[in-house]
Amino acid sequence: MTPTLTVGMIGYNFMGRAHSNAWRQAPHFFDLPAKIEMKTLCGRCAPAVEKAAERLGWAEARTDWRAVVEDPDIDIIDISTPNDTHAPIAIAAAEAGKAVLCEKPLGMNLPECEAMTAAVERANVVNMVCHNYRRIPAVALAKRMIDDGMLGERIYHYRARYAQDWLADPDFPINWRLRSEFAGSGANGDINAHIVDLGRYLVGEFAEVCGVMETFVKERPQGTVTVDDAVSFIGRFRNGAVANLEATRFARGRKNTIALEINGSGGSLAFDFEDMNRLRFYDAGDPPQARGFRDILVTESVHPYIGAWWPPGHIIGYEHTFVHTFADFIKAVVEGSSVQPVFADGLENERVLSAVQESARRKIWITVDSTKK
Amino acid sequence: MTPTLTVGMIGYNFMGRAHSNAWRQAPHFFDLPAKIEMKTLCGRCAPAVEKAAERLGWAEARTDWRAVVEDPDIDIIDISTPNDTHAPIAIAAAEAGKAVLCEKPLGMNLPECEAMTAAVERANVVNMVCHNYRRIPAVALAKRMIDDGMLGERIYHYRARYAQDWLADPDFPINWRLRSEFAGSGANGDINAHIVDLGRYLVGEFAEVCGVMETFVKERPQGTVTVDDAVSFIGRFRNGAVANLEATRFARGRKNTIALEINGSGGSLAFDFEDMNRLRFYDAGDPPQARGFRDILVTESVHPYIGAWWPPGHIIGYEHTFVHTFADFIKAVVEGSSVQPVFADGLENERVLSAVQESARRKIWITVDSTKK
Amino acid sequence: MTPTLTVGMIGYNFMGRAHSNAWRQAPHFFDLPAKIEMKTLCGRCAPAVEKAAERLGWAEARTDWRAVVEDPDIDIIDISTPNDTHAPIAIAAAEAGKAVLCEKPLGMNLPECEAMTAAVERANVVNMVCHNYRRIPAVALAKRMIDDGMLGERIYHYRARYAQDWLADPDFPINWRLRSEFAGSGANGDINAHIVDLGRYLVGEFAEVCGVMETFVKERPQGTVTVDDAVSFIGRFRNGAVANLEATRFARGRKNTIALEINGSGGSLAFDFEDMNRLRFYDAGDPPQARGFRDILVTESVHPYIGAWWPPGHIIGYEHTFVHTFADFIKAVVEGSSVQPVFADGLENERVLSAVQESARRKIWITVDSTKK
Amino acid sequence: MTPTLTVGMIGYNFMGRAHSNAWRQAPHFFDLPAKIEMKTLCGRCAPAVEKAAERLGWAEARTDWRAVVEDPDIDIIDISTPNDTHAPIAIAAAEAGKAVLCEKPLGMNLPECEAMTAAVERANVVNMVCHNYRRIPAVALAKRMIDDGMLGERIYHYRARYAQDWLADPDFPINWRLRSEFAGSGANGDINAHIVDLGRYLVGEFAEVCGVMETFVKERPQGTVTVDDAVSFIGRFRNGAVANLEATRFARGRKNTIALEINGSGGSLAFDFEDMNRLRFYDAGDPPQARGFRDILVTESVHPYIGAWWPPGHIIGYEHTFVHTFADFIKAVVEGSSVQPVFADGLENERVLSAVQESARRKIWITVDSTKK
Repeated sequence: MTPTLTVGMIGYNFMGRAHSNAWRQAPHFFDLPAKIEMKTLCGRCAPAVEKAAERLGWAEARTDWRAVVEDPDIDIIDISTPNDTHAPIAIAAAEAGKAVLCEKPLGMNLPECEAMTAAVERANVVNMVCHNYRRIPAVALAKRMIDDGMLGERIYHYRARYAQDWLADPDFPINWRLRSEFAGSGANGDINAHIVDLGRYLVGEFAEVCGVMETFVKERPQGTVTVDDAVSFIGRFRNGAVANLEATRFARGRKNTIALEINGSGGSLAFDFEDMNRLRFYDAGDPPQARGFRDILVTESVHPYIGAWWPPGHIIGYEHTFVHTFADFIKAVVEGSSVQPVFADGLENERVLSAVQESARRKIWITVDSTKK
Repeated sequence: MTPTLTVGMIGYNFMGRAHSNAWRQAPHFFDLPAKIEMKTLCGRCAPAVEKAAERLGWAEARTDWRAVVEDPDIDIIDISTPNDTHAPIAIAAAEAGKAVLCEKPLGMNLPECEAMTAAVERANVVNMVCHNYRRIPAVALAKRMIDDGMLGERIYHYRARYAQDWLADPDFPINWRLRSEFAGSGANGDINAHIVDLGRYLVGEFAEVCGVMETFVKERPQGTVTVDDAVSFIGRFRNGAVANLEATRFARGRKNTIALEINGSGGSLAFDFEDMNRLRFYDAGDPPQARGFRDILVTESVHPYIGAWWPPGHIIGYEHTFVHTFADFIKAVVEGSSVQPVFADGLENERVLSAVQESARRKIWITVDSTKK
Repeated sequence: MTPTLTVGMIGYNFMGRAHSNAWRQAPHFFDLPAKIEMKTLCGRCAPAVEKAAERLGWAEARTDWRAVVEDPDIDIIDISTPNDTHAPIAIAAAEAGKAVLCEKPLGMNLPECEAMTAAVERANVVNMVCHNYRRIPAVALAKRMIDDGMLGERIYHYRARYAQDWLADPDFPINWRLRSEFAGSGANGDINAHIVDLGRYLVGEFAEVCGVMETFVKERPQGTVTVDDAVSFIGRFRNGAVANLEATRFARGRKNTIALEINGSGGSLAFDFEDMNRLRFYDAGDPPQARGFRDILVTESVHPYIGAWWPPGHIIGYEHTFVHTFADFIKAVVEGSSVQPVFADGLENERVLSAVQESARRKIWITVDSTKK
Repeated sequence: MTPTLTVGMIGYNFMGRAHSNAWRQAPHFFDLPAKIEMKTLCGRCAPAVEKAAERLGWAEARTDWRAVVEDPDIDIIDISTPNDTHAPIAIAAAEAGKAVLCEKPLGMNLPECEAMTAAVERANVVNMVCHNYRRIPAVALAKRMIDDGMLGERIYHYRARYAQDWLADPDFPINWRLRSEFAGSGANGDINAHIVDLGRYLVGEFAEVCGVMETFVKERPQGTVTVDDAVSFIGRFRNGAVANLEATRFARGRKNTIALEINGSGGSLAFDFEDMNRLRFYDAGDPPQARGFRDILVTESVHPYIGAWWPPGHIIGYEHTFVHTFADFIKAVVEGSSVQPVFADGLENERVLSAVQESARRKIWITVDSTKK
């Protein structure tokens, strides 16, 4: 008989909407080994969370996350709150024996991430950090192609750029994402985190980094910006590949560009999230007169996750990446298995981000020390 | 108090999945004036329809569409069956006083479309034909820009191409879409219908047409193809614009290309469904040194329907076009108002398609006579 | 010993500049079997032609084309005058035993083209009509790939569009290209001629056509337009492929778009002149998960004509197509061999264009009768 | 009366071909204030230089560059030799009072560049370093738009990538460009030099840099590689803009990609050399619903240098950038005026490149000190 997994989710804004949609949609498109019961939505402001619960499909609304975490009916705690509350909620959830799915970045800083990772490992609960972009079909296909050797034996370059423009206007008012006490960092933890994660997923572990950070507009309506507006760093992977990454919220015209390019000895891959259903692939083994980047429309049933959706040429969108993530997480919870990226990945990601931040502050290269506690 | 609209849907395959998703999702993203109850899913094969009902979110499964149409609890009949059953179901639903939403093409031929349109008009029920592509945000934006005069006073050219490649392989076996008794026509009714509809929506009524049709592969595994593989036609709109349209299932590498271009006296618009979140716009009024097609990423809250979804740069996909369509339909049903495209639009569309078909058969130009019964 | 070929050119405007450049440049980039002496430039207005001769690199300027054609020192007559003078000059040149290179369209109408073709065949002189776009490296590569079977055994579709926008402004004044007595036709002979030629080159002979022509703006500053502004036609090739072509000068934002797409049973090719160093190729035989249009940057030494120019990635431009054409013509003159496209190709091209024009005028399909005199 | 400038050129390989073409072509397309006499081509191997002189259009061939530099008939010395000979030739030419045009990079290292700059300044001769990419029409347009304030008051980001792939194959044999004694550096001086120059031209002076360099394949057929295969660096401009640059010869599928993006407070510009006739421009002041990168086809007569060439939509290629450069240089020589980029620009460029190299070697940030001798 199909078991039922009961979910409690903390947080109900942008990420809460995306997560709710994923819980609702996954069972309609994927053959899941469990039914999903969306029991509790939790937030601090009672009227708002009640309204959100109704709109987003949750059976009840609550305001005390500790009660949700301790609810014996609940199997899964899903965390989509601002960054400063990830750690206490996730640690409590782990201690309560819940499977935990946490929005990225995992924590505010290295000590938080270490504590969170230790907690889920100690409690031996299924845990996942929601780097949803790993499950863009084009990105999952890139991973498969690299693993299959289609880029050759060696990767030379990983370059990635995450660019937005919502802060390019100096009159855009302050919000929690621009204050270090709630967000930890700015572009670094919010968006650089994603392309660091994709680098680790697709290429390997970072060895050393050197970065520059900048806050272009320090004073905004309603407050002072205490995080970085942009970060750019160079580095090396342990496998010898050279890294060049940039994250900014000041690139006019770039709305949510996540532009990746990976160059290997046998070929290259390129991707941009604004056109997320495509993967560009250059195969150096093609006939000399007919070589060129292939524009692969990743909507075929042979492509990762696509079989669940529509016929070729009928594209999917942003929120589908969460559906894929949650479908895989649900399977892992039922099986008690591990599902990438785990909290330890979030921790390693934070090690890279912290190294970038320290290198920018001290203007030196920093080794990414994965053994350091 | 918010009313509830109860829905019965006939058909549960590709279109049934897309329609079910729209019924489920619309209330979670749009402020609707009614709650939606997904009561009955109906199909001919009991086990299959029962399984589909569970997967797609319907409360019950039935096999007799007449019983569904006559169910007094049901307010809306949604038809997503093969083309040959659209007419009897829609007419019965209208006679039963139901609001009717019917997949395109409206009917198998002109007489069916006329009877269906007469039935809904006689019964005075809210009716809509599901040309979902009108509600791609980029297409709705194109309509708004044309209406606002951003292409100038006069449209010179409408060119559209709907291209797929699933039949380019001669070993692809026959199915209902390739047999005239079930589908009415091939590329003409299936995909040409969409770009004819978009031409009527964006440019105006067709005056005269001349087409060519071809069945490149007549014998396939399991049967003889009795519809067109491809259709291409030239024509004129009543407002003097020249039309050039093509629909084919034989264009290798084109998965679901719907490429439109409209040239006006003051500018041009271009669109391709495979990259459906973009609209390209050329403004002849830009400064001479800085003119060029603008690549508008249609993901801003000022864009049609986008406010309901995600932040800028986070794209949406194919099925969202149905959510938009159904949200507008639901509002019309509650208000008892008209919502484009109505059955009369499906009829006019069929007049154009029939004219194209006749012109191809007789090798002459045909006037599109909208007064003819 | 390397022979010298002496050239006389009639006409010195846009095409005259492009031709002069080709005569000058070919010897510096290609290993030609002859030296080129640019002796005479001929035009009606003495001061202008003298100035042009100096600027364009001709040794002398003349005003009487008959004297040039009869000059015993001259081996090659190059015709780049307005269309109404092509026939008398080319016929006289052939009768004088000169090799003849004539700008397209070959003549003003079918009788002229027939007379011109008969003249060069009777005189047995090397002759070529300057459809320079055949020698765009990407187009020459397309031809090679089709001949090599890379598109499969059968071509299903040829679609081509030649779009400009210089007439979209109704205040653009009249010139010789808009008057039938000098130009013969408008978009049809000027630009449709090119894509008809490319269709014949890449796909095969046209069997039947049906077209529509339109003059959107009939009155312009300084006169009445007596040619077509736009032409659009459908048709069939003798090999069963379906044709869809359009030529217009009213497509805002399209400066010199020549967009081709050819769909075969095994793959597709796409090209646009505005990005003329690329050829897009879809190979249906690629691995299922990695299929997609390849963006071939046609700048490799293995590509046609490229070895003469620059390293990979260093693109060439419009005028290089003339250099390629002239280099091939020079070889043919030295060898006394035939070089495509000959005058007979210009004649067959005119048969198609005339059929399109007649079909538009009479609103019927017209068979392209290649046996008709 | 129009004066004549007599030219002697040292070097006749790739760059020599491009320079010769520019000397030949400039007078045919631009209204120059002088006639050009291509007198002497000079190279070390007599038979090869004689053959090249004939092919490339030079009146005579010589093997002793000192004799050419001292030839009293010669007004201009054009240097297109390997990097190690730039300094002695340029200094001798300056001392002989010649106008000097030198291929980039100016010298092998900072002392050479300083000596060269001092020499031309002491001799007060017209001097120019051939950073031809400044005169790509799209780049010159970018400069004009930035100067006109179309990107806003402030530049936030300059990112540039110069990517090729000719070394990605480890079996590609060694040549002079891979040996430090002839080339000075690898990707750094050869291609990074170009994007550093474009950064200085478009954005401003670099303040500090930190880079990483890598030689991926150290042993090749016929020798050991003693230069960098790839270089990547971050930095700051003096005006506060953040820099991110990368140059590599190991990016499979990238033939001569020069991808620039500049983000300002009011808009952005993007460019790629592989499609060099386009400039992409995002204007944050466009109407909210119609904002997007404009795809400016830089082929209009209002665009820089284009009036000399062809009608809109007829693109130009790589070698045209040299024609533009040489046309401007010729004007400067006649007028005795300065023409950017002068040798002092080549020196400042070398200061940046040296700083990048030192920062990579020592793994520290380096200040670009423009006062240092």
